[in-house]
Amino acid sequence: MPAFANRMEYMAGSAAIIRSLFGAMNDPETISFGGGAPASDALPVEQIREIAADVLRRDTRGVEALQYGPVQGIRQLREIVAGKLLAPKGVPADPDDILIVNGGLETMNLLCQVFINPGDVILCESPTFVHCVEIFEMFQAKCIGCRTDDLGIDPEDVENKILEYHPKMVYVIPTFQNPTGKTLPAERREKLAELGSKYDVIILEDDPYRDLRYSGEELKPIKAYDKTGRTVLANSFSKIFSPGSRLGYVYADHRIIEKLIDAKSATNSHTSMLPQILCAEFFARGYYDEHLKKLCSIHRERRDAMMAALEKTMPEGTRWVFPDGGLFTWVELPGGIDTTELLKEAVGYKVAFIAGAGFYVGGTEEGKNCMRLSYGNVTPEKIEIGMKRLGDLICSKL
Amino acid sequence: MPAFANRMEYMAGSAAIIRSLFGAMNDPETISFGGGAPASDALPVEQIREIAADVLRRDTRGVEALQYGPVQGIRQLREIVAGKLLAPKGVPADPDDILIVNGGLETMNLLCQVFINPGDVILCESPTFVHCVEIFEMFQAKCIGCRTDDLGIDPEDVENKILEYHPKMVYVIPTFQNPTGKTLPAERREKLAELGSKYDVIILEDDPYRDLRYSGEELKPIKAYDKTGRTVLANSFSKIFSPGSRLGYVYADHRIIEKLIDAKSATNSHTSMLPQILCAEFFARGYYDEHLKKLCSIHRERRDAMMAALEKTMPEGTRWVFPDGGLFTWVELPGGIDTTELLKEAVGYKVAFIAGAGFYVGGTEEGKNCMRLSYGNVTPEKIEIGMKRLGDLICSKL
Repeated sequence: MPAFANRMEYMAGSAAIIRSLFGAMNDPETISFGGGAPASDALPVEQIREIAADVLRRDTRGVEALQYGPVQGIRQLREIVAGKLLAPKGVPADPDDILIVNGGLETMNLLCQVFINPGDVILCESPTFVHCVEIFEMFQAKCIGCRTDDLGIDPEDVENKILEYHPKMVYVIPTFQNPTGKTLPAERREKLAELGSKYDVIILEDDPYRDLRYSGEELKPIKAYDKTGRTVLANSFSKIFSPGSRLGYVYADHRIIEKLIDAKSATNSHTSMLPQILCAEFFARGYYDEHLKKLCSIHRERRDAMMAALEKTMPEGTRWVFPDGGLFTWVELPGGIDTTELLKEAVGYKVAFIAGAGFYVGGTEEGKNCMRLSYGNVTPEKIEIGMKRLGDLICSKL
Repeated sequence: MPAFANRMEYMAGSAAIIRSLFGAMNDPETISFGGGAPASDALPVEQIREIAADVLRRDTRGVEALQYGPVQGIRQLREIVAGKLLAPKGVPADPDDILIVNGGLETMNLLCQVFINPGDVILCESPTFVHCVEIFEMFQAKCIGCRTDDLGIDPEDVENKILEYHPKMVYVIPTFQNPTGKTLPAERREKLAELGSKYDVIILEDDPYRDLRYSGEELKPIKAYDKTGRTVLANSFSKIFSPGSRLGYVYADHRIIEKLIDAKSATNSHTSMLPQILCAEFFARGYYDEHLKKLCSIHRERRDAMMAALEKTMPEGTRWVFPDGGLFTWVELPGGIDTTELLKEAVGYKVAFIAGAGFYVGGTEEGKNCMRLSYGNVTPEKIEIGMKRLGDLICSKL
């Protein structure tokens, strides 16, 4: 066989971590806190069925839905992104500066295509989203983790590392972060946007969880503080509409969007048309507001169930994050328990999570006693049962 | 703004060519022979509507369609590819060695991710599909064109160029080639597969048009002659189901598929679920056979209308390909007419095509008097009108 490209060597580790998650999730008896899926119960199946029946007609939008479409995505959806999702958050956007992508993650890939040469540095939170690290590594970027405290990434450390490593990009998930569930306060958001402008560095803001807020005050995206076009706002319809539709969007300076469109064209021509139309119509018909209330109500109940279960089942000395929204909490275990080892045993007890070590870059020892717990797609009853299993196992180790 | 990655410089030319096509296609009064779309009239809108109504229910497949899915694509669709599309063509495939992608073109991108380092050589037909050259250039591959005669790419020249350039890959569209409409005979197919094995080179077989055959004998894919796993078969549902659904597949040796799955995961996680389910059900319900007959009948009529129009409108000395299927013919004009210049004028006469020069790699002078005419999405009546406009313009130049 001809030699694989160099980039494939770099991603071997993170790809293995991601694949390992899918296995455990396939056993129907296992209660998995592993995946990042939102509640299946809340997926708007009925509304999408109604819309599909209306648009899939030759005299309505049937041909548009099935024929080739524009690389940038349909204008109706880009206008909805600008008008209904960005403007209310203090981000005035021109629909021409928005690109529709095949799921939020594709933005990270396309932005790497546009900006990353092998060896370029990307700063990220420590811990950060492992799936994006996989992408960065495929582009042979050097990922450097930045210090994170209870409020999230520390802009002072980001500035120091910008000066030390001259990165091309800083990757941040500011709201209900993956994996920690932490939310970056407004002053740090503003500071990051300023750092991007001051040092000519792309601030890649990945904000897919932000609309799933159950408590606390809404915060503007980093992009709202951007004065020079260095912040790129990536978002997704996965958590607020449907993950399987693979719909995301990116809003950026026009010079960047033009290049992203070229990269998108050379990746897969355009995003699937029917999901774009179904999503746009979902908003156009006014279903979103009610749906978002339902989503928040279902997920808030699960967040609360998870918090109560942690309180009840975890041994003394355990620390965890109270997330104001999103799908995750981050748990730090006492007594030197290695969660990578723990997971192997936990699967035998029919409970799964993601071990913390995989969320750190650069071969650090950090996170070995941590785990990410996702409550999004687990009912409150199963959260209680699963956490009992997990708590019993952990307590048996101490 | 931070510097764009080196790869973006390489694709500037081909990206501009592709964008130029989309503009001309947007004027509703223009009769465009430019795009590569199949007939909108033949899109299976009614069947897909029926299937959508059935599967988008909470008690059927509604949750599956809207929730996250497997990176590799749903098993039902991979089994259909193996059983209904590959086996009858002499290609016995394990569904585990098939990956579903977001449109046929994505395979070229993923395969470059897996195999291409900057500077690696890819051999291709001369002329070849410009959109794939765009992808190869984004990966900083060096594209070298191989000699093509009336039967398609010449394996002897391929072998000489393998020895001279040591390529990683040979990219071939063997059936109803894009842009020429030519079909490679069986012995050349076999020879290409052998060259891949003999010299340890990937033969990337891109075969999206093959099922749209209107005359002549069906031929096995190159992959059917592959004895060592060096041939990778890329195909698409764009021409036989729906282009806007962005559904394609790749069948390859397991060692390659594993890497392609990693690359897919790091590109956009997985292909949109609802289109996969709609397509799989379309086959499972037995709609495909009848649909393919309809597709071939509609497109055969258009091919015949185009052949008749060429005969009637083109000046003496014009040569063109009689395609046994697919969507394209390739026209070579007499009298030193430069089709890139001609196109600018043609748009004023409300007729469009793609100029030939863009389909050649490596700054050659070839193809300047050629054009690709696509008849797939133009009715016979409009083919007659459009070709009259084009013929009058061309004759006025001589």
